[in-house]
Amino acid sequence: MSHAPGIVSFRVRYADTDQMGTYYNARALEWFEFGRNELLRALGRPYRQWEAQGLRLPVFEAHVRFLGPAAYDDLLTLTTSLAREGRAKLRFESRIEQADGGEAVCEGWTVHAVTDPGGRAIRPPAWLIDLADGG
Amino acid sequence: MSHAPGIVSFRVRYADTDQMGTYYNARALEWFEFGRNELLRALGRPYRQWEAQGLRLPVFEAHVRFLGPAAYDDLLTLTTSLAREGRAKLRFESRIEQADGGEAVCEGWTVHAVTDPGGRAIRPPAWLIDLADGG
Amino acid sequence: MSHAPGIVSFRVRYADTDQMGTYYNARALEWFEFGRNELLRALGRPYRQWEAQGLRLPVFEAHVRFLGPAAYDDLLTLTTSLAREGRAKLRFESRIEQADGGEAVCEGWTVHAVTDPGGRAIRPPAWLIDLADGG
Amino acid sequence: MSHAPGIVSFRVRYADTDQMGTYYNARALEWFEFGRNELLRALGRPYRQWEAQGLRLPVFEAHVRFLGPAAYDDLLTLTTSLAREGRAKLRFESRIEQADGGEAVCEGWTVHAVTDPGGRAIRPPAWLIDLADGG
Repeated sequence: MSHAPGIVSFRVRYADTDQMGTYYNARALEWFEFGRNELLRALGRPYRQWEAQGLRLPVFEAHVRFLGPAAYDDLLTLTTSLAREGRAKLRFESRIEQADGGEAVCEGWTVHAVTDPGGRAIRPPAWLIDLADGG
Repeated sequence: MSHAPGIVSFRVRYADTDQMGTYYNARALEWFEFGRNELLRALGRPYRQWEAQGLRLPVFEAHVRFLGPAAYDDLLTLTTSLAREGRAKLRFESRIEQADGGEAVCEGWTVHAVTDPGGRAIRPPAWLIDLADGG
Repeated sequence: MSHAPGIVSFRVRYADTDQMGTYYNARALEWFEFGRNELLRALGRPYRQWEAQGLRLPVFEAHVRFLGPAAYDDLLTLTTSLAREGRAKLRFESRIEQADGGEAVCEGWTVHAVTDPGGRAIRPPAWLIDLADGG
Repeated sequence: MSHAPGIVSFRVRYADTDQMGTYYNARALEWFEFGRNELLRALGRPYRQWEAQGLRLPVFEAHVRFLGPAAYDDLLTLTTSLAREGRAKLRFESRIEQADGGEAVCEGWTVHAVTDPGGRAIRPPAWLIDLADGG
């Protein structure tokens, strides 16, 4: 079971574009990060607080499907949702569409380990399991 | 059947790092691009020539598994290989390791469509099929 | 004479940070671009319309003074203003502060040529001179 | 008095380009960092050793003049030199040209403070003053 998704909008910057006239592929992963940040904030658990509590959430695996172009200044809508992946990892699903018309831009997911500041996997605290399970 | 892989080395820049003290996840996709560029050059078919001939190779799908840290100035070894994906796409496999010690940093793949400059999928020319088939 | 400045806010992403725990220096120039985009939109002349009309505004010179740190998720306020630089160039002044407390993060400027799509300098149209002169 | 400059070459990546078909302006600062890293290594004082000794070299001010285009895969030559700026700062001068033909791409400089890990300015050690003075 996953949470109601978080939705944010942003515009493509010149910095995001490449010579092909669309967004450069690696920028999708930066956008996914933006969506995760804002989802966790919307859920009342901004990630910076996790770090202050000694939790880290390094990316373990990432996947992107590139579905359509996005040009400079296009307004895009990014939808992010959170779920659990197995017993000790988190999974964020991301989807980006053109705000005007809804054409797909890209979608994908990232799976994150839950670790201490030294990078050792730890058992997620109860509030985090509840968060991921939508509790 | 895939080609003998291309191998390049590079060092992690401060620009690649993040607050966690390792490389930021999206940088892996920039590194994979570097490996593709140099593999195609080593095979005698630099990608810029493809563009001059009216071919484009947009990324269709990308996958990254993050396997270990890489700090500022670490010397990394990037191995890239090329294969065909179905009848009309290309697949590059990428793996990055610490040059000193060989610890895994990340690995993954990108699948690319073959299109004309307008973005329409086209039948790959014979030389490209040969290249991907290792011919 | 310059325009009333445009003001936007944004948060520092993990992608913006580096191993030193603050924002990586080159990101300041990406942020300045964001400010220019939003200032021109606020003035009723979004830059994408300029491009559609055959105008380009390549950066000619850039300057940044780094004044203080900004950590992941810090909320920053970016103030941008526009003026003319000589007869044929534009100058944007940028300043970034912590939204909470107002401590300076960085400031600087970019000077832009006005060119045709082929990169040749052209005489700025009257509406652009008016815009830069605050008319 | 400054050192004999360090020279490195690199190719423009797709990641560096933008919709205008040349390199995105902020990338110049990433390239300048690459030049600084390799100059200090060539001088026998790689920056990572400075950090291990408790020195930091944050960018204090940066300046770039954009002089000409650079397209995907262009081979560029980056020349970097080091000098002292006042009593307690360092200044790196950077210049990037097309390797083939020598046309100017961009040039600029960065001025760096010398600090401890907490960001407090410190008196540069003698070896660092010698390094900057070419001794």
